[in-house]
Amino acid sequence: MNQKKPLILVTNDDGISAPGIRKLIAVMKEIGDVVVVAPDKPQSAMGHAITINNTLYINKINIDDDVQEEYSCSGTPVDCVKLAVHEILHKKPDLCVSGINHGSNSSINVIYSGTMSAALEAGMEGIPAIGFSLLDYAWEADFDAAEDYIKKITLETIKNGLPNGVVLNVNVPKCKKSEIKGVKVCRQANAQWVETFDKRTNPQGRDYYWLTGEFISEDKGEDTDEAALKNNYISVVPVQFDLTAHHAIKEINLWNL
Amino acid sequence: MNQKKPLILVTNDDGISAPGIRKLIAVMKEIGDVVVVAPDKPQSAMGHAITINNTLYINKINIDDDVQEEYSCSGTPVDCVKLAVHEILHKKPDLCVSGINHGSNSSINVIYSGTMSAALEAGMEGIPAIGFSLLDYAWEADFDAAEDYIKKITLETIKNGLPNGVVLNVNVPKCKKSEIKGVKVCRQANAQWVETFDKRTNPQGRDYYWLTGEFISEDKGEDTDEAALKNNYISVVPVQFDLTAHHAIKEINLWNL
Repeated sequence: MNQKKPLILVTNDDGISAPGIRKLIAVMKEIGDVVVVAPDKPQSAMGHAITINNTLYINKINIDDDVQEEYSCSGTPVDCVKLAVHEILHKKPDLCVSGINHGSNSSINVIYSGTMSAALEAGMEGIPAIGFSLLDYAWEADFDAAEDYIKKITLETIKNGLPNGVVLNVNVPKCKKSEIKGVKVCRQANAQWVETFDKRTNPQGRDYYWLTGEFISEDKGEDTDEAALKNNYISVVPVQFDLTAHHAIKEINLWNL
Repeated sequence: MNQKKPLILVTNDDGISAPGIRKLIAVMKEIGDVVVVAPDKPQSAMGHAITINNTLYINKINIDDDVQEEYSCSGTPVDCVKLAVHEILHKKPDLCVSGINHGSNSSINVIYSGTMSAALEAGMEGIPAIGFSLLDYAWEADFDAAEDYIKKITLETIKNGLPNGVVLNVNVPKCKKSEIKGVKVCRQANAQWVETFDKRTNPQGRDYYWLTGEFISEDKGEDTDEAALKNNYISVVPVQFDLTAHHAIKEINLWNL
């Protein structure tokens, strides 16, 4: 019996068989009892989408030979968290971790990210939550370098707890372990994607588009996640789901409404 | 020639033929030159999802006999805004309005809302933007009561501009026009959905789930959107896409990271 082990829900948006989540599961098993509920297929860039006009399926599966409980789900990352809490665990876990995402969720990417939306959903349900991402989109990305830092950040989160209404967005630079300089707590850089659409013609002669784009940051602040990552630091941004621009209320109250 | 008319992009998440967007188009045509780019099918609860692993199609269509340019798009509300700016208009419109949504986007609903994500995407591209929603999910909801208020809020937005990084989330109570008491600038209420899944068995004997839930607000603040709407006021919440919980940075900096 090990009653003191925290119960940790692990999810992601790249799908339950992605190397990133397999690594995260391995790290979390050193810390607590792990239950995995993750999408049965890639769900990147799903934002905070939920499935309200379609059915949801859960499969109990076994991907590696190890003992943790695992479930794949037909829905989005946010659906996974909701189903985990209400239909699988039937209680709140002590922690929810999402990732390790294959690719950056720094700066404005937090808005599009399924990884971070899963963490935010857990936070909205009152569960301490962290999203982890590595700045490498490759399937065979090297997740080993981040391992010790992920463990440390997770243990500190469990130990200290998180402020109300806050979850953590952790991004890891793409470099060797020896090159990581440490951890910085940051604000989200003010940056954006500038889209370019790749216009093509299908075999039936109809035009279609692929979304592509370039990430542009003109934020010169030293206190941003982009600056930290550029200098080989791991960035930790506390993220909130109260989207109110409190500073703007006074100004808009002067309007003639 | 009427060179001073603002160019207004209209979109939504209920689909281009929904009564809510048809009403919004009619109101915006009293204010400016309107171009419509909206999903070809309902996209509710899509959050800030974008289409990166699939192709996007645009159709130039004509739904009513009127003269505005209209395009339906196979993607999400956020895709619609990106395509509108970069492939259809080839410039930023003076304003982007999204809605009128069939159903509330107050409080935490802002996070799940395709309507509001379209407005946020426009804001991220530097376009003044407003999302409008009516607290009535019915297809045949009465959008007339809100008409004058929507026009007024839009004109004030054009006149005053919006603070950097801020878009407006406007919700209209479900009541007669004579019962609307006015407009209140508010903060997002601290509320949440408590999920209950409706578990069923399909004809093949396999279990599946429908997501349902109950909206619970324990926020007693008089300055919230929920409080305003309950008292038959239209709520206007300034919403930001910098999700940094700035107040939490200091606290987390005390951790041993």
